[in-house]
Amino acid sequence: MGIVVVGSVAYDTVETATGRRDDALGGAATFFSVAARFFAPVSMVGVVGKDFQKEHEQMLHDRGIDVRALEHADGKTFHWHGRYHEDMNRRDTISLALNVFDGFNPTLLPDQQRCDYLFLANISPELQYRVATQVKSPKLVAADTMDFWIQNARPHLTRLLERLDILTVNDEEARMLSGEHNLVKAGRAILKMGPKSLLVKRGEYGVLQFSKEGMFAVPAYPLEEVVDPTGAGDTFAGGLMGFLARQGRINESILRTAVVYGTVMASYTVENFSMDRLLELTWEEIDHRYRAFIELTDSHSNRWNSPS
Amino acid sequence: MGIVVVGSVAYDTVETATGRRDDALGGAATFFSVAARFFAPVSMVGVVGKDFQKEHEQMLHDRGIDVRALEHADGKTFHWHGRYHEDMNRRDTISLALNVFDGFNPTLLPDQQRCDYLFLANISPELQYRVATQVKSPKLVAADTMDFWIQNARPHLTRLLERLDILTVNDEEARMLSGEHNLVKAGRAILKMGPKSLLVKRGEYGVLQFSKEGMFAVPAYPLEEVVDPTGAGDTFAGGLMGFLARQGRINESILRTAVVYGTVMASYTVENFSMDRLLELTWEEIDHRYRAFIELTDSHSNRWNSPS
Repeated sequence: MGIVVVGSVAYDTVETATGRRDDALGGAATFFSVAARFFAPVSMVGVVGKDFQKEHEQMLHDRGIDVRALEHADGKTFHWHGRYHEDMNRRDTISLALNVFDGFNPTLLPDQQRCDYLFLANISPELQYRVATQVKSPKLVAADTMDFWIQNARPHLTRLLERLDILTVNDEEARMLSGEHNLVKAGRAILKMGPKSLLVKRGEYGVLQFSKEGMFAVPAYPLEEVVDPTGAGDTFAGGLMGFLARQGRINESILRTAVVYGTVMASYTVENFSMDRLLELTWEEIDHRYRAFIELTDSHSNRWNSPS
Repeated sequence: MGIVVVGSVAYDTVETATGRRDDALGGAATFFSVAARFFAPVSMVGVVGKDFQKEHEQMLHDRGIDVRALEHADGKTFHWHGRYHEDMNRRDTISLALNVFDGFNPTLLPDQQRCDYLFLANISPELQYRVATQVKSPKLVAADTMDFWIQNARPHLTRLLERLDILTVNDEEARMLSGEHNLVKAGRAILKMGPKSLLVKRGEYGVLQFSKEGMFAVPAYPLEEVVDPTGAGDTFAGGLMGFLARQGRINESILRTAVVYGTVMASYTVENFSMDRLLELTWEEIDHRYRAFIELTDSHSNRWNSPS
């Protein structure tokens, strides 16, 4: 089967310099699934509370996302409230209520344990590791993490890293994890910890990919208006994993294209609050922006040979 | 003839988190000329004081840079003292002594007035405009500017912009000049002010190019160690203009390659203090990094068609 994603399903309250949205559908697993489903079958593992709206679960189901392992627990759904600065690469958390997510202990269904592609969204490395060991013989395992776990769960994270094909972090997390300020040094140091590839997410500055074959640098797609960056990283991972699952195999060339598709998906997510833009997105739009992205970054090689 | 550059020649004292260099050769026209000379003939217009070392003038001459219009005035050479933060995109000016540069009133020699390529490094827009009007029928005029002139010399700058083929600024300057925080909006607004192309320099995040044909985004070349960013922008301009002059014509494709060569030249400059790295650079190294850069940014298109 296709992709299994384990992570948060949430309601987010988001404030930006120009607007606000209360209790909108969010969560890493949600953004990831909606993005990845454009490319391949997706099965979600998560937990929601009694307040989770039937229409949201129905929407996921209607899009062909497998929600059998979306557990309904007593209590409220995970809630995050954040405020972005005018420089949208920066944000403050106003409040965070884990609610039912606090006791989350993901268990994969038998068929999910036979998945080929596993994405471990940002939860504790201990849980990520436990999930990873449930999957029999995956083709590819990728994970996201964050500063909190790097500082407070290093032994579990170290054990997880050894099992990963791909790790995604932002630039500050890459520095923290490696102890190196310089990103090239940080990237090389992290590759030695286990993952075959490292993707450093730099917000509006794009993505830097490190692998044994070398580096790949892509800018973010330059947008006239960024409304809400929430979910950009998870949508990026969704586009990336979706494309890889669709291809069914991986090499440097396919991974690079996957990074571009991830970037394209993320660029749409940030155009509106929550997943509003993602939910109305069409394949024609994805294809259009993919081509625009290739044009944006194509250096039209006119290499000039030395006069000597 | 080839390129004429008008701008500062200076001695710089630079402090970084890891080192310091006192009274090293610097200045926009100097960095520009050394970089551009790898590609095409360059003629410098600038002013130095009595303290300017003969060996520095000899070095420029020995590299085939025309220094006939390097004026020697009574007084001291322009001196800048700066300190970089650990985040090298940020720096503070500790002291600035214009010295002989204060009365700089550039006058082109008759043959310089017939140049095809003119680069107006960062001096007052009033002087830049005056120089631009001295050139009879240039193929291409490019200029750099800074926050101080945008805030304090707007009428002169406005008049200059109308004559420009290419303007180079950093992202904060693009925002200030346009009044738009979003860079895509800023870029479009600045194109309406006159320049055919705008190059927004973003330090370690690369360059964003705007022109009628669209946008071009290139990352900076990721380096394991950045020693001293001083002169990176001027070296970028030197590589860019040098390549354009070498080609002798311009279109979107050639301009993009020129941006890549500019990026390559800048990446070498920052590897050591002052112009130490640039002065030992070989064509083989330029060509090697150009190819590495193409590989770094090549997305190996594997576009996947919609299932619909």
